[in-house]
Amino acid sequence: MTLEAIRYRAGSLQILNQLLLPHQTAYEEIRTVQNAYEAIKSMKVRGAPAIAIVGCLSLAVELRAGAGGDDPVTFIRESLCHLTSARPTAVNMGRAARELMEFAENESMEKNSEQLRESVIAWIEDMLARDVNDNKKIGNYGAQHILSGVPRDSVTILTHCNTGSLATAGYGTALGVVRSLHALGRLKRVYCTETRPYNQGSRLTAYEAVAEGIPATLITDSMAALTMREMNITAVVVGADRVVANGDTANKVGTYQLAIAAKHHGIPFYVAAPSTSCDLSLESGRDIIIEVRPPEELTSINGVPIAAPGIEVWNPAFDVTPHQLITGGIITELGVFLPSELQAALTGRLTAL
Amino acid sequence: MTLEAIRYRAGSLQILNQLLLPHQTAYEEIRTVQNAYEAIKSMKVRGAPAIAIVGCLSLAVELRAGAGGDDPVTFIRESLCHLTSARPTAVNMGRAARELMEFAENESMEKNSEQLRESVIAWIEDMLARDVNDNKKIGNYGAQHILSGVPRDSVTILTHCNTGSLATAGYGTALGVVRSLHALGRLKRVYCTETRPYNQGSRLTAYEAVAEGIPATLITDSMAALTMREMNITAVVVGADRVVANGDTANKVGTYQLAIAAKHHGIPFYVAAPSTSCDLSLESGRDIIIEVRPPEELTSINGVPIAAPGIEVWNPAFDVTPHQLITGGIITELGVFLPSELQAALTGRLTAL
Repeated sequence: MTLEAIRYRAGSLQILNQLLLPHQTAYEEIRTVQNAYEAIKSMKVRGAPAIAIVGCLSLAVELRAGAGGDDPVTFIRESLCHLTSARPTAVNMGRAARELMEFAENESMEKNSEQLRESVIAWIEDMLARDVNDNKKIGNYGAQHILSGVPRDSVTILTHCNTGSLATAGYGTALGVVRSLHALGRLKRVYCTETRPYNQGSRLTAYEAVAEGIPATLITDSMAALTMREMNITAVVVGADRVVANGDTANKVGTYQLAIAAKHHGIPFYVAAPSTSCDLSLESGRDIIIEVRPPEELTSINGVPIAAPGIEVWNPAFDVTPHQLITGGIITELGVFLPSELQAALTGRLTAL
Repeated sequence: MTLEAIRYRAGSLQILNQLLLPHQTAYEEIRTVQNAYEAIKSMKVRGAPAIAIVGCLSLAVELRAGAGGDDPVTFIRESLCHLTSARPTAVNMGRAARELMEFAENESMEKNSEQLRESVIAWIEDMLARDVNDNKKIGNYGAQHILSGVPRDSVTILTHCNTGSLATAGYGTALGVVRSLHALGRLKRVYCTETRPYNQGSRLTAYEAVAEGIPATLITDSMAALTMREMNITAVVVGADRVVANGDTANKVGTYQLAIAAKHHGIPFYVAAPSTSCDLSLESGRDIIIEVRPPEELTSINGVPIAAPGIEVWNPAFDVTPHQLITGGIITELGVFLPSELQAALTGRLTAL
């Protein structure tokens, strides 16, 4: 079975509250855009693709209940602005908001409020289906690319953070590649970093692995280089919050350090992300603003202090991995591309290898 | 002021109970060898040098109170055996016990019980003074070496684990270098990694920094590479569990990864360790066996589970940094040496630069 983190049936949305994982599996009803905003802000739902999906689905739920009245376009615009502000670094929400807004404005030219609501709802529901589908393509392209280097052997993967069903609409990006390898019977083991300070690896990736019987071993972030040296790692595969035009990739803090260690050991380093996570409007990673989060994420766990009182803290949520370190390639639903090929591939000038 | 983890005045010994840190600062009286044994066993005192010092000082306290009566040599032998068994892997206690026993046996040839007691007490008190002194030399040699590269500026240091007053007889090794830089008015800031899974950085190094007003910022282990890129790190300085003949260094897990990241950024990487931590009997780091510790250190904090139940764990306690990555040098009480110079320096064939 694949873990279901987002449960959507027409007019009804539930999310698995990730703050309670791994100890408690509890779904929470999302009835309004404001519910979704709060769930995103408080990180009950996280992962750039999942944020966009939950945000848009919450809008679909409200629209189905008649929200926006005679002026749904204004309601849609204000809702999308609000949703985008919950986690500004997550590019997918911003992109979905722009696309959806453009669609809604075009539709509004020729449709009445009720018809507009219907077509926007259909657009959003299609987005959910397309997202899961894209992830499965990412999983398969990534698995094939990795296996092409090792024709017969099982492979050992190292991954970071959570990029699975809990971070996406379903299946996952980097963890989708791991799922595909496992489904092909070619995964020996995946090593997952605990991913301090928020422990998405030990709480979420480990939870998904245990739930689905994927052979997995938890390590601390500081053990990754040693694991690369000792455990015959075939490839490192991570997700992305944002990939920019030259292939530089913003992702969970620690990704940059993993990429350096992978380079040092001659291990291919892959970024797995849907094309919707690619932002060609930015030239290079220098243009990405890094979100700095509260000190308490480092100094306490579940409200219990674990650090010396009074210590200053720096808590950047993301880092940027320069494209030179992405030696394996960028795995998208369109195929696997070198960073230098990305722009051409996404603009239709290059097809998958 | 320097944090005093071991308070010794003739006939009286107190230790800072590290199990209560960082939340509570409580000193505990050590009146007997048995008190010290229990404090070591329960990890109220930790760090190989600190364990040896506390063990021997407890013996001095008992001897000063007349323990051993007419046969102090037997009392000393039995006490040292007992103390060594508290944490058999802490090599310094074993080494101190062998040296002290040899000294006591020689003294017993020509001295009466009272004179023997006096000279053993003097030997132990000298050991304490020598250890602190060696650390101060390490601190000063390291500080001068780092500053020689930046004649006027203040420096920013990144360190790992705890190597300060809480791990040694006082002052510290890598953190001693930081203390010396601070005392010289040349330390801009020290970044300390939290050092998963046992959090010596966030609990102990942060505690020492706050207690002494050293400007310090806590980061997760995964943020080190980003910190190197963004925060203008002058040097990385770490301690050592063991340095072998070719300069390969076993230290707290994560050290290897830091050294790779430092190399990538062109930042000098230093190991600070007393010559007593150097083990010339081993040729290279390949001969060092890596201790693997219980999974619970990753999966829970203070007994509270933090990871998905059922996940497998790999928990190596330390890693080996190859000498090629120790680009700054090895800082000892004899001076700062390149890994290739270490053997000659320690066997007296090379003097400090």
